[in-house]
Amino acid sequence: MLAEIITIGDEILIGQIVDTNSAWMAQRLNEIGVRVKQISSVSDDREHILKAFAEATGRADIILITGGLGPTKDDITKKTLAEYFGVELVESEVALNNVLEIFKRYNRPLLDTNRQQALVPANCEVINNNNGTAPGMWFNHNGKVYMSMPGVPFEMMYMMDEQVLPKIKATFKLSTIIHNTILTVGEGESYLAERIADIENELPPYIKLAYLPKLGQVRLRISGYSDGDETLLQQQVDAFTNRIAERVSNVVAAREDIPLEKAILNMMTERGLTLSTAESCTGGFLSSLLTQHAGSSKVFLGGAVSYSNQLKQSILGVNAATIQQFGAVSEETVIEMANGALKNFASDYAIAVTGIAGPDGGTPDKPVGTVWIAVVTASKQLVKKFTFRGKRQQNIERSAISALGMLNTLLNDKVI
Amino acid sequence: MLAEIITIGDEILIGQIVDTNSAWMAQRLNEIGVRVKQISSVSDDREHILKAFAEATGRADIILITGGLGPTKDDITKKTLAEYFGVELVESEVALNNVLEIFKRYNRPLLDTNRQQALVPANCEVINNNNGTAPGMWFNHNGKVYMSMPGVPFEMMYMMDEQVLPKIKATFKLSTIIHNTILTVGEGESYLAERIADIENELPPYIKLAYLPKLGQVRLRISGYSDGDETLLQQQVDAFTNRIAERVSNVVAAREDIPLEKAILNMMTERGLTLSTAESCTGGFLSSLLTQHAGSSKVFLGGAVSYSNQLKQSILGVNAATIQQFGAVSEETVIEMANGALKNFASDYAIAVTGIAGPDGGTPDKPVGTVWIAVVTASKQLVKKFTFRGKRQQNIERSAISALGMLNTLLNDKVI
Repeated sequence: MLAEIITIGDEILIGQIVDTNSAWMAQRLNEIGVRVKQISSVSDDREHILKAFAEATGRADIILITGGLGPTKDDITKKTLAEYFGVELVESEVALNNVLEIFKRYNRPLLDTNRQQALVPANCEVINNNNGTAPGMWFNHNGKVYMSMPGVPFEMMYMMDEQVLPKIKATFKLSTIIHNTILTVGEGESYLAERIADIENELPPYIKLAYLPKLGQVRLRISGYSDGDETLLQQQVDAFTNRIAERVSNVVAAREDIPLEKAILNMMTERGLTLSTAESCTGGFLSSLLTQHAGSSKVFLGGAVSYSNQLKQSILGVNAATIQQFGAVSEETVIEMANGALKNFASDYAIAVTGIAGPDGGTPDKPVGTVWIAVVTASKQLVKKFTFRGKRQQNIERSAISALGMLNTLLNDKVI
Repeated sequence: MLAEIITIGDEILIGQIVDTNSAWMAQRLNEIGVRVKQISSVSDDREHILKAFAEATGRADIILITGGLGPTKDDITKKTLAEYFGVELVESEVALNNVLEIFKRYNRPLLDTNRQQALVPANCEVINNNNGTAPGMWFNHNGKVYMSMPGVPFEMMYMMDEQVLPKIKATFKLSTIIHNTILTVGEGESYLAERIADIENELPPYIKLAYLPKLGQVRLRISGYSDGDETLLQQQVDAFTNRIAERVSNVVAAREDIPLEKAILNMMTERGLTLSTAESCTGGFLSSLLTQHAGSSKVFLGGAVSYSNQLKQSILGVNAATIQQFGAVSEETVIEMANGALKNFASDYAIAVTGIAGPDGGTPDKPVGTVWIAVVTASKQLVKKFTFRGKRQQNIERSAISALGMLNTLLNDKVI
C-alpha cells in the first residue's frame, strides 16, 4: 500500500519553516504498513496543486494533504480540491458547529471569514478538528483516498492519530503489523548486534528486527507481519522481545517507544525516587529535557545551572581549592558538584555535568568535547569522562544523553 | 528565476529524519532572488528519480539534488544522473585527490568502495567537497542547471555557501537583492504595522517589507530589488530600515537576523553586563536557549531550576510565608525569586519565571498557562503576568521568549 504526502503553502518553499509534519506522518504510516512513495511541497498556486494531485494519484493509493486551510486569501486548498473533483463548496454543519463552539469558548466575535472555515467540497466526509477551526476532509475517489488536513502540527497530529490512521486501517484492510520497541542506551549498534546475534538468527521471516540509532541510544524495533492470527503473532513477537531485552538488560531503559528521559521519569515515579541536577556545560539542556514532560515535577526537584565557578561554589558547595587544583572540568569537581546537589537539593539521585562544549575553551590537555559526568546517591556513585568530537550543540546533547544513560545504569543497579 | 529541490533517499520517506536541508536551501535561494517552486523527497528508485528529474525540468531552471551519494549500494544518484544525461561514469581526478587526502588525514586504508566516490557522470563539473568524500556535481544541460550535492547537512551547507550560490549568481546574472532585518519582540504584527503604516506607504515598488512573526517576536525584513546601482539601493534600503527601527525602537532587539537570545547576549556582552536566571515552569529551557550560543558564559553566570517550593526557598531565598500566602505562582513569589537570583548569583540582571505549564496543576483562579515573570536589577524591576493558552511545550517556549522580551525592554531602558 503506497501513500504520498503533499504539503501546500509558501512557508516551506521560502524556508520560513522546516517541514516536520511529513516525517512524523511518514513514520506513523510506516508503522501501520503503508509505504510513502514521495513527499512534495508545492506553492499556493492552483495549477501547481492540481498537477501535484494528478501526479500523486498516478503513483499512490492514499494521498495525504496538509496546509492551505487557513481563512486568508492565499489558502486555496479547499477550492482546488473542489475543482479537482468537479464539485461545489458547501457549508458543513459539523464543521460550522465546531467553529461556533471554538469562538464561543474564547468569547470572540465570529467574522465572515471564520464562518467560511465551514465550507467544504460537496463530496467530502468531514473529519472533525478537535484543536482548531479548519476541518479535516476525507475523499473516496476512483478507489483512492485523499485526506486534507490543517498544517498546524498538533492539529494534524491529533487528527491523524485519533481519526485518520484508524480510518485508513479500516478502509484498506491492511495486514496486521505489530511493533515492539526496546530502548537501549550506552552501547553501540554493532556491539548490541553481536550480543543478540543468535536470537536474531532464529527470527522467522515474518518477524523483523531493526536497529534505530540516535545520539548514544539504540532503539530495537521488533516488527511482526501477518495476514492471519493476530494473537499468535503478538505472542511470538512478545517472546522474542523478552528474550532480547533480557539478554541486554544492563542497557535497557524502556520496553516501549518513548524518549530516554521519559523512561527514566517513569521508572523513578514508580519507585518514588527524586532527582536533582548540577549542570555546567549542558547549561540547562538536561533540565529542560526532563521538564518538557508532564508530571516531571513528581521526580525532578530542580537543579543548578552553575556556569560560573563562583556558582559552583556558592550553590553546590564545591571547594574553591578543588577547582583551583584540578580545574572546573575534572573528576574531583564533578563529584563535588553531584554531592553538593544531592545534599543542597535533598534528592535521592543527583547528576552533575561539567565540560567544554566549545568552540572555545579547549586546551591540549582538555580539548573541546571533554566532559565529566557524575551520578550519585547517598550510597552509590558512577563517574565517567567522555571525549566528544562534535560541534557545541552536539556536545551538549550527547552529554545530556550520556548522563541519562549513566543514571539508567545506576537505577538498574549494575554498580555498587 | 525558479528552482526545485529534490531529496533522494529513504530516510526521509520512512520518517527516520526530518528534512531540514530543503528549508535551509530554500531560504538561501530566496535571499539571492531565486524562488523555489517545489520540494520533493523521492525514494532510492531509478525510475522514480528519473521521473522526478523530468518533472522538475518542466517547471524550473535550477534543479538542486541532495542525497544518495554514499558509497553503499542503495545510493544510486550518480548512476541515475548519468543515465538521465546519457553519459558514462568516469573517474574524476579532482574528486579522487580529495578522497585520497581525506583518507590520508584520518590514516585509514582506502577500500575500493571509497575510490568509487570519485566516479562522476562524464558531463559534469566537479564541485569539490571540503568536508567529505562525496563530490558535488554541476551540470549545464539544455539551458538548465542541475546540481547534485551530498545529503549530510554541513557538507551541503558549506558547498552551497562557498561554491554553488556564487556560481548560480554568476551563471544567471540575477538581479541585486538586499535584505535588512529588524528583530522586534513583545508587540503583535498588526500593532507594528499600524505604527509604521506611513513609512510603509512611502516604500517604492522595488523595496518590500515583510512581517515574519514567530512566538511573540516579529522579524521585519526590508528587501530591495534592482538591476542597476547596488550602492544606491543599499543606501535607500538602509534609510528605510533606520526610519522603521527608530519608530518602533522600544521593541527592537536587533538590527540583524539573529535569534532573540543571541541579540540579548550581544547587547550585554558589549556593555559588560551579567545575567542569572531563576526558572520554575520553564524548567531550564531559558538557560539552555542562552547557553547554546558560544560565548554565552561571558554574560550568563548560571541559574536555578527551582521546580520544588523547597528549592525556591533554599537556593533563591524565597520566604516560605510568601509561597504559603500567595502561592508559588504569584507576583510576590516571582519578585522574591528574581531578587534572590540577583543576590545569590551576584549578577547585574536576573530573570525569574514561575507558572503553570500544564497539562495538570491548573485551578479556576490560576488556569494552565498562567505565568508570572520578573526581570530585575539592583535599581529597576519589571513584573508581568501572562495567560498563555497553549500546550505544555508551547507555554514553556512562550514564557522564555516573553522573559527575554522583558529583559530587552529593561536593557532598552524604557522603564524606571
